[in-house]
Amino acid sequence: MNEKIKLVHGDGGKYTDELIQKIFYKHFNNSILTEGIDSALFPVCKGRMAFTTDSFVVRPLFFSGGNIGKLAICGTINDLAVSGAKPLYLSTGFIIEEGFSIEILDLIVNEMAKQCKASEVKIVTGDTKVVEKGSADGIFINTAGVGIVEEDYEMKKINAGDKIIVSGNIGAHGTTIALERYNIDAKSNIKSDCASVYKIISSLKEYYPFIKIMKDPTRGGLATILNEISNISGLSIKLEEESIPVLREVAGITKMLGMDPMYMACEGRVVLVVKSEVAEDIVNKLRSIEQCEDANIIGTFTSNQECLVYIENYFGGKRILNPLDGEMLPRIC
Amino acid sequence: MNEKIKLVHGDGGKYTDELIQKIFYKHFNNSILTEGIDSALFPVCKGRMAFTTDSFVVRPLFFSGGNIGKLAICGTINDLAVSGAKPLYLSTGFIIEEGFSIEILDLIVNEMAKQCKASEVKIVTGDTKVVEKGSADGIFINTAGVGIVEEDYEMKKINAGDKIIVSGNIGAHGTTIALERYNIDAKSNIKSDCASVYKIISSLKEYYPFIKIMKDPTRGGLATILNEISNISGLSIKLEEESIPVLREVAGITKMLGMDPMYMACEGRVVLVVKSEVAEDIVNKLRSIEQCEDANIIGTFTSNQECLVYIENYFGGKRILNPLDGEMLPRIC
Repeated sequence: MNEKIKLVHGDGGKYTDELIQKIFYKHFNNSILTEGIDSALFPVCKGRMAFTTDSFVVRPLFFSGGNIGKLAICGTINDLAVSGAKPLYLSTGFIIEEGFSIEILDLIVNEMAKQCKASEVKIVTGDTKVVEKGSADGIFINTAGVGIVEEDYEMKKINAGDKIIVSGNIGAHGTTIALERYNIDAKSNIKSDCASVYKIISSLKEYYPFIKIMKDPTRGGLATILNEISNISGLSIKLEEESIPVLREVAGITKMLGMDPMYMACEGRVVLVVKSEVAEDIVNKLRSIEQCEDANIIGTFTSNQECLVYIENYFGGKRILNPLDGEMLPRIC
Repeated sequence: MNEKIKLVHGDGGKYTDELIQKIFYKHFNNSILTEGIDSALFPVCKGRMAFTTDSFVVRPLFFSGGNIGKLAICGTINDLAVSGAKPLYLSTGFIIEEGFSIEILDLIVNEMAKQCKASEVKIVTGDTKVVEKGSADGIFINTAGVGIVEEDYEMKKINAGDKIIVSGNIGAHGTTIALERYNIDAKSNIKSDCASVYKIISSLKEYYPFIKIMKDPTRGGLATILNEISNISGLSIKLEEESIPVLREVAGITKMLGMDPMYMACEGRVVLVVKSEVAEDIVNKLRSIEQCEDANIIGTFTSNQECLVYIENYFGGKRILNPLDGEMLPRIC
């Protein structure tokens, strides 16, 4: 199969319909989607709903540990999950460049379907636009998602002494993209951490009363997300350098590239702020879960109200981590 | 102000935050959005929810009667409205080319905010990605939307004798885009019909028991949407040529361009299938509403099960209208 996307695939007529049937309905087969009406319809119960969106423009499209389709599903699932919601339904919006390979589209859509199945979410509505050759770079994917907020989770006021946990080692996604973007043959085994975090979060339900905030450290990495949390809390954050989990290969390669793993995007990690008395228990629980073997307590909120995020090393040296200021690596998701 | 979008505006750090504050929060100011968490959270009641998405890649970005921002809001509102839902919350995903004018972005976002206000919907969550110069054509906008299905509307089985109504004259949007795309100076007053149809639809509530299906004839135009409805019904559709409302200027210009108004996108029209006994009443009701002065009954379902859509003219001649088969005009929305 060596077919290419043509402009007519985006005109809303016969060819659009053919693409929908042969690619999208084949993989995303569910009765809400295949109703084929202008909106997906589904029942809801009384409660609180979460709604989020993300566009994905990552380059390269395929990388070790994932591809743009996997990112597009996991990214939106993760934004719902860290808001305390159970992800239910997703939409997809494809913008495709004329001449794009239908075979590659099929691979991407297949991966999206696989991720949806694994996370028990459904793609229930979608749209495809085609633009002329040169008007887009291959394929861009938007996903939006809705979920229902689990009853017993809500954000809480952060106090001095509260602990910060990260659910796994950081920086692998951004480092993978950097290596593959620049064709660096580092003979490494690094792969993207791209994954749904919903199962991680739902395994912590018993601790919800002690969890104050959950975030996924994507663009801008751990340092940027900690600055955001610090601003929300009105307090400063002290991190312990040795406790931040970074794979040795990630540390080595980012050093070589002049990058900082603290600012490299993760796509399958969660940052949790928790009451100190349960921090150890939560880390132990996390370490028993796949993809969280390296979970650790990495820092503490201090009563300093300057909203600084700083790392203290073994010798007592301090380094302030500002929010990402300037370009690290574009198009990592 | 002659500032340009830079790659750093998409990296999730300080500049992204600045763009969010200065452009998006300024215009889309509401408390759900500015909570700034990973998902928007809002209460829902028991019922049926509608969820839809659309990406917008229209060229030119600004045209007589609207711009890409107006289309992006109205398009998603309309998909919810024709599903019988009251539109409530929207998401936006911007993909912007490096070097795009921040002033133009501001104009687009301002128009989006204006449309949201007029339709009482809120943009509650969003995302912005920036790609390198040459990797996208200016700006692409995705919107997704959720709404609550009005209790007494549902799709119904279509029977022979049921009437087809269109809420206004057709083809003006597509014709406007064609004129402006190709810089044709036709000295016309044609402008896009781009508008929300929610008020039109909600003004017909008393007729919901008699309305069998509602659709908005966007890409592929009236002919394509009627073929879709014909396939759903399993019946054929006979249209009367003289009763299809087409502005004289639209008819003239499409003829000159070798295009057919039946296949030109509308962005503010509704096609309704109704029981014949209420068809006249609904048309009279519609004609009293702004943007529906040209509403008319344009055809009837026949018992023929070949699912043909055909026009009969004054002299008894027949012309079959197939679904759009081949490129009419790319990037009209």
